[in-house]
Amino acid sequence: MPHRGRPHKIAPEEQVRRAMRLFWRKGYYDTSVDDLVSDTGINRYTVCTAHGGKKSLFEKALALYEAEVTSSFLAVLETDGAGLFAIRDFFCQFLAFLEQPIGAYGCLLCNTSSEVAPDDPAIANRIERYIARLTGALRRAAQSAKARGELREGVDLDQFADYCAGSVLGIMSFSRSPAPRRAVRNYVQGILHAIDAVSATAKPSPPNDRKGKRT
Amino acid sequence: MPHRGRPHKIAPEEQVRRAMRLFWRKGYYDTSVDDLVSDTGINRYTVCTAHGGKKSLFEKALALYEAEVTSSFLAVLETDGAGLFAIRDFFCQFLAFLEQPIGAYGCLLCNTSSEVAPDDPAIANRIERYIARLTGALRRAAQSAKARGELREGVDLDQFADYCAGSVLGIMSFSRSPAPRRAVRNYVQGILHAIDAVSATAKPSPPNDRKGKRT
Repeated sequence: MPHRGRPHKIAPEEQVRRAMRLFWRKGYYDTSVDDLVSDTGINRYTVCTAHGGKKSLFEKALALYEAEVTSSFLAVLETDGAGLFAIRDFFCQFLAFLEQPIGAYGCLLCNTSSEVAPDDPAIANRIERYIARLTGALRRAAQSAKARGELREGVDLDQFADYCAGSVLGIMSFSRSPAPRRAVRNYVQGILHAIDAVSATAKPSPPNDRKGKRT
Repeated sequence: MPHRGRPHKIAPEEQVRRAMRLFWRKGYYDTSVDDLVSDTGINRYTVCTAHGGKKSLFEKALALYEAEVTSSFLAVLETDGAGLFAIRDFFCQFLAFLEQPIGAYGCLLCNTSSEVAPDDPAIANRIERYIARLTGALRRAAQSAKARGELREGVDLDQFADYCAGSVLGIMSFSRSPAPRRAVRNYVQGILHAIDAVSATAKPSPPNDRKGKRT
C-alpha cells in the first residue's frame, strides 16, 4: 500500500522496513526504484544516495528481515535447553503463519535463495549463513533432545537437522505457491508426524488445528 | 553458454528449449531480451515477433518444461498400477538429479511459483494446475497402495499426498539454494523415511546412496 506525504518524517530503519515488505512480496528483480519510491514513500534521492541504491537497500532489508522476522521464528530453538518439544513448537508456528495474509509472501530469505543467490555470490553467502544458522539451531536442539533421552535409538542427528532445515524451505515455498492453504497445512502436519516419529515415546500427532496451537 | 552463428537454422522447438534453459537458470525477471538473444542465438526479431515477446516465450518455455522435464519425473507415478513403491521411486529420482549440474537450477515450475505466480494470475493458474497434477498423481498412487494393502491402517490419503507434494517443492527449493549437497541428500532421505513410515510392512530405509539407486 502506498505511503503518501511527508516522506522526510520516515525514520531510516522504518524506510528499510517498508522496503523489506515490498521486496518480500514482489521479489528483488521485479521491484524497481520507482516501485520503492511509490510504494514506501521514500524519495528517490534517499533510495539512491542515503541507502546507496536498490541493491544496497535490498541487503539492508535482508539483514533487517533476519534480525526481526527470522529471529522471532528461531527464538524457540535458540533458547537454552531447547529439545524435541522446541523443534515441534518451532514447526507449529508455521500453522499460525499460514493463516495470515503474510503467509502468502513465504520467507524473504527463502525467496531470495531461489531468485537471487544462484547468480550473486554475496547474496548466496548471506543465504548460506542463514541456512547454517537454521541447521545449527536444529542440530543443537536435537543434540539436547538426545542427551535427555527424548530421541529413540538410532536417530542420525545431522540427517534429522538437515531434514528439518529443508522442511522450512519446503513450507515457505509451498506457502508462497498458489496451492490451497489446506494442502500447506497438511504438509506441515506431515512434518510434525516425522518429528513425532523420532521421539523416544510414541506420541500421537495433534489433530489438524487451524490455529496451530498444541493440543 | 552462448550459441553463435546461423540462428536461422534453429528449429522453433529448439528455440523454446534454449529459452527454457535460460529461464530455468536465471529466472524470469532477470532474463532480458538481450540475454535471450546473446545466450540462445535466437535473433531479436524471432523473440519479439515469431514468439510474441519475452512473456509469451516464457509461457511456451513453461509448457515445454512441463511436457519434457516434469512429465519425465512424473512418469513413474502416472503409470497404471503405481503404488507405494512408485512413490518411493519417484523421490529416489531426486537423489540422482541432485548430483547433476542441473540440480542447482531446481525446478522451473517451482521457481516460477515463487518468483512470478504471486503477481501474475495467468502464471499462478498454470502453477496451480501443475500442483494439482502432482498431488493428483500422488493421491492416486496412495489410493492404489491402500487398495493393495501396502499402507498401514489410519493413513489419511489426502494428507499424505499433500505432504509428498509439498516435499517436492521443498526438494527443489533446497536444491536451488547454496546449501551443501550433502544436506539436500539428507533432506531427501528424511522424506524417504516418512514414506517408509506409512508402509504396512516396517521396512528399513536404504543407506544414504549418492547415486540414488534403490538397495
